Amino acid sequence: MNKTRTAITPTRAENYSEWYQQVIAGADLAENSPVRGCMIIRPWGYTLWENMQRALDDMFKATGHQNAYFPLFIPLSFLQKEAAHVEGFAKECAVVTHHRLELDADGKLVPTGELEEPLVVRPTSETIIGDAFARWVQSYRDLPLLINQWANVVRWEMRTRLFLRTTEFLWQEGHTAHATREEAVDETMRMLDVYADFAENWMAVPVIKGEKTAGERFPGADRTFSIEAMMYDRKALQAGTSHFLGQNFARASGIQFLSAGGAQEFAWTTSWGVSTRLIGGLIMTHSDDDGFVLPPKLAPQQVVIIPIYRSDDEKGSVLDYCRKLAAELRVQRYNDAPVRALVDEREERGGEKVWSWVRKGVPVRLEIGPRDIDKDAVFAARRDRAPKDKQSIARTEFVATIANTLQTIQDGLFTKAAAYRKEHTRVIDNRDEFYAFFASPPVAEDAPTPIHAGFALTHFSGDVDLEKKIKDDLSVTVRCIPLEKSEPGTCPFTGKSSAQRVVWAKAY
Amino acid sequence: MNKTRTAITPTRAENYSEWYQQVIAGADLAENSPVRGCMIIRPWGYTLWENMQRALDDMFKATGHQNAYFPLFIPLSFLQKEAAHVEGFAKECAVVTHHRLELDADGKLVPTGELEEPLVVRPTSETIIGDAFARWVQSYRDLPLLINQWANVVRWEMRTRLFLRTTEFLWQEGHTAHATREEAVDETMRMLDVYADFAENWMAVPVIKGEKTAGERFPGADRTFSIEAMMYDRKALQAGTSHFLGQNFARASGIQFLSAGGAQEFAWTTSWGVSTRLIGGLIMTHSDDDGFVLPPKLAPQQVVIIPIYRSDDEKGSVLDYCRKLAAELRVQRYNDAPVRALVDEREERGGEKVWSWVRKGVPVRLEIGPRDIDKDAVFAARRDRAPKDKQSIARTEFVATIANTLQTIQDGLFTKAAAYRKEHTRVIDNRDEFYAFFASPPVAEDAPTPIHAGFALTHFSGDVDLEKKIKDDLSVTVRCIPLEKSEPGTCPFTGKSSAQRVVWAKAY
Repeated sequence: MNKTRTAITPTRAENYSEWYQQVIAGADLAENSPVRGCMIIRPWGYTLWENMQRALDDMFKATGHQNAYFPLFIPLSFLQKEAAHVEGFAKECAVVTHHRLELDADGKLVPTGELEEPLVVRPTSETIIGDAFARWVQSYRDLPLLINQWANVVRWEMRTRLFLRTTEFLWQEGHTAHATREEAVDETMRMLDVYADFAENWMAVPVIKGEKTAGERFPGADRTFSIEAMMYDRKALQAGTSHFLGQNFARASGIQFLSAGGAQEFAWTTSWGVSTRLIGGLIMTHSDDDGFVLPPKLAPQQVVIIPIYRSDDEKGSVLDYCRKLAAELRVQRYNDAPVRALVDEREERGGEKVWSWVRKGVPVRLEIGPRDIDKDAVFAARRDRAPKDKQSIARTEFVATIANTLQTIQDGLFTKAAAYRKEHTRVIDNRDEFYAFFASPPVAEDAPTPIHAGFALTHFSGDVDLEKKIKDDLSVTVRCIPLEKSEPGTCPFTGKSSAQRVVWAKAY
Repeated sequence: MNKTRTAITPTRAENYSEWYQQVIAGADLAENSPVRGCMIIRPWGYTLWENMQRALDDMFKATGHQNAYFPLFIPLSFLQKEAAHVEGFAKECAVVTHHRLELDADGKLVPTGELEEPLVVRPTSETIIGDAFARWVQSYRDLPLLINQWANVVRWEMRTRLFLRTTEFLWQEGHTAHATREEAVDETMRMLDVYADFAENWMAVPVIKGEKTAGERFPGADRTFSIEAMMYDRKALQAGTSHFLGQNFARASGIQFLSAGGAQEFAWTTSWGVSTRLIGGLIMTHSDDDGFVLPPKLAPQQVVIIPIYRSDDEKGSVLDYCRKLAAELRVQRYNDAPVRALVDEREERGGEKVWSWVRKGVPVRLEIGPRDIDKDAVFAARRDRAPKDKQSIARTEFVATIANTLQTIQDGLFTKAAAYRKEHTRVIDNRDEFYAFFASPPVAEDAPTPIHAGFALTHFSGDVDLEKKIKDDLSVTVRCIPLEKSEPGTCPFTGKSSAQRVVWAKAY
C-alpha cells in the first residue's frame, strides 16, 4: 500500500513529539531562540495570540475587570512573605544581581554594580500586586478590586518545549480582592467559567472544569480550580487555572479594610491565569499530519485566496478578480467582526502557496485561475477536509455563505475533539482495570510516539498517600475533581465511600 | 487678591516638578513601586496606554508591519556584537546571573545556580532580533521584513521620574530589513511620519520632525530622526525616534541575502520606537493646575455622568435617566468608535466625584439631578474650560452633537499647544542674543519651578565641538535639524555658511 504523502514529516504515528515541533515550524508559529528555553513567537503565532488576547480581554472587561501593569522585578523579601509560595517558586527563577556591565582586561563584559537586594524576574505577581493592593484598599468601598495584567513571566525550566513549557512565556494574571469569602469564591468560579467558555467557544477545545487535589494546588492557595483538555496523545493539558487564595496573601501583604460594620478585616483574594501554553493545546487538539488546523474564530486569516496564472496577461485579470473578491469577503461579518481575507500575491509557485496555507491551518483556501473567473466561481478547499477535496462554488454563493461556512468548521472542530475525548475516556470501578488501562497504553511509553490510554473516571476517597502511590506506579495523577458531579459511590482503591468520580490521566 | 483654589497642590508656578507628580497621583495614572525606579501603571493610566497602543498598532499594520515577540533576555555576547551599541547600553542594564534561590543557614534567600553566561534584561532588541532576521532572510524575496514588538524593556536609570524616565518601561520597537539603502531610508521616514501623525492627531501634541546631530544618535545608527515637542516648562521632549541603521547591525548579526542579481549582500535595517514616556509628554503638554487634561480621542472615558440626588426616591429616577443617557451616548460614534460614556455610581458625595473626574482629565462631565430631568436637559462642563463653567443643554441636542463637541475639544487642545510653542520659540541670528535667551530664563534654574526660555531657531554650521561647548555653557542642545528646511544663512557662532536653521532647547 502506498503511504499517503503528508505535509508534515514525521507523522503523529511516527514520532509524536517531533511531529509537534514540525507543525510549529511548518506553520511559522514560533522557534527556539539562542537564549536557553526562551522562544521567539513569529508573526503567525503572535497574531493568533493577539486574537486570543482580544477575545479574553473583552470577556475580562465584560466581567468588570480593568488592566494595570506591575513591575517585572520582585525583591527577594517580597517572595518570602508567603511560605508555601516561596517554596513553590524559588527553585526556578531568574535572579538579577547586578546593574552594570564593564569590560575587563581581556575585553570581556563582566557584571558590576552589585545590588544590595537581588531581584527576581516575576514568576507570578501575587506578592508585588498584593503590596499595591494593601495601599489601594482602605475601606469596604474600595472593594471589590478587580485587576488583570498582561505580561511576560519567567520560570527557569530545565526541560522546555515550545508553547507548553518555556522559560519566558506570555500570560495574563488576574488578581482580585473582596470583602467576603463568598464573593471571592464566586469570582474564582466566574473566571473558571470564562476560561471554559473561551476554550470551548473560541478555541473549539472541550474542557473539564474541576478542582485540583491538595498536591496539585497553587503554592499558597486555599483552593485551585482548572480546566483540563485531552490532547491528541490522550494526555491532559491544564489549560487555565483559577485560585481562591483565602486570606493567605492578604495576611502576607497586609491587605486590610474597614468593614461596613467598622471592623478592620483582611480581604479575600483570588488569582487566575492563562498563557501562551494555550497555543500548545490548540496545536495538539486540532492539528493533523498536514500541519496546524485553526479554529476560524481565532485564525489570523480565515480565507486565503491563491491566484493561479501562467502569463503576465492572465496575472493582471486574475489578481484583479482576487482582490475584488477579498474586498467582498471583508465586508461580510463573522463572529461580530469583518471576515479576515488575504490574497497571497507572493512570487511563489501556486502549489507551494497552497501547501504553506495548509500547514498554517487557514480554515478556507481558494484557488482562482482564468477558468474559475470565466464561470464566476471559486475553487474552494476547507482545512477540516482532505487537502485535495476541493469544490467549485459560484462566487456570489460562496461570499453570501462564508459566515456559515466558517461557523460550520468551528463547530466541526469542537465536535470532533469532543468525540475523541469521549472515545478515550473510560469509566472504571475496579483497581486492576485501572492499572491495566494505564499500564498498557496502545503504544509503549518509550516508543517515539507514546500514545497514552486517555482519561479514567473513578471514584476516589481522596487519600494523599494513595494518590502519590498511583503517581509513582503509573505516572498518572488526579487531573481534577469535576464540578459536574457524578453519582456517589465506592473508591476502587480503598473501598471507602466517595462523593463523586475524579479524572485521572497522564499530564503535560 | 484671593488665590483661586486649584485641584492640584502645588501649582505649576509654585513647584513644577512636584506639580507633575501630583497630577499623576491625582489622576490615578501611576505610582512608584517598592522596586527601585519601576512604576506601577494604574488602571486609568493603563487604559490610556491601551488606547495609544491600539491607535499606533493600527497605523503600524496599515503600513504593512506585523507583530512578533522576542526573548526578554540577551546573552552578553550578543550585546557585544556592535561596538557603539554595547558602549551605549552596558552602563545601565539589569544582569541576570543566577537561576535559583536557596535558603541559607539564617533562613535568608540567596541566589544559587550561577549561569555560564550572564543574561541582560533587554534594554532594546536590535541584537536579538538581528540574530533572528539573519535566519529568516535568505533571498531578496524575503525582504522587506517588517516587524514590530510590544514589550517591556529595562534601563538601569539612576534618577527616575514617572513615565519620563523609569527603570522598566513599556514600549514598541519596530525592526525592519530591506534590500536597498533607499527603501530603508524611506521606511525610517515613513515611521517618523506615523509618529508625528499620532502625536498631532491623537495626542494633540504639535511636534517638530527632524534629524539628530551625531552626538545624539542612537548607539550604532547611521542616522537618527525624532519628533520633538515643547512641554509646559518649555523644555523639549523627544517623543519618538526612528533610526536608519545602515548595514551596521546587518553586518554585526549576519543579515545577508541573495539579491535579484545573484550577489550575496548585507541587508539595510531600521528601528523605531515610542514608549510610555509619551504619557509624560501628554501630561506636560495639556494639564493645568486642576490636573490632567485628556485629548478626547485617547480618553479612557470621554463623557462621565454624575448623578445628583438627595434621597433614595430621587436616586432611582436619576440613575435611571443617567443610564439611559449613557446608552444613548454609546450608540453615537466619534473617531470611528462608539462614544465612551460612564455613569459614576460610586457612593461618594457629588462634589467629590466631580473633582475626581476633573483631576482625571475627562473631556466632558455631566451633572444630572431632578431639576435637569424635569427640563430633559444635561448640566455640562468641559475639561478645556474652567471647572465651574457649566451649561444646561437640552439632552437631545447634547447627544446629537457629542462627536462635534469632542472634536472641538481635541482641536482646541492642539491649537492651544501650538500657540504656546509658537509664543516660546524665537528665531535668533546673534550669539549674544542666543546666550541671553537661554542664560536668563523667566525663572531661575534653581527655583522650585525652573521655567525655561523655550526653543531657539538658529543657523548652525554643525561643528561637534561648538555644540559641546554650548551644552557645557547653557545645558542646551540641538534637539533636531528640522525636516522642514528654513532659508540658508550664516551660523551666528562661527560665521560659516549654514544650510538651514536648527532647534535648540533644554531637554528631558
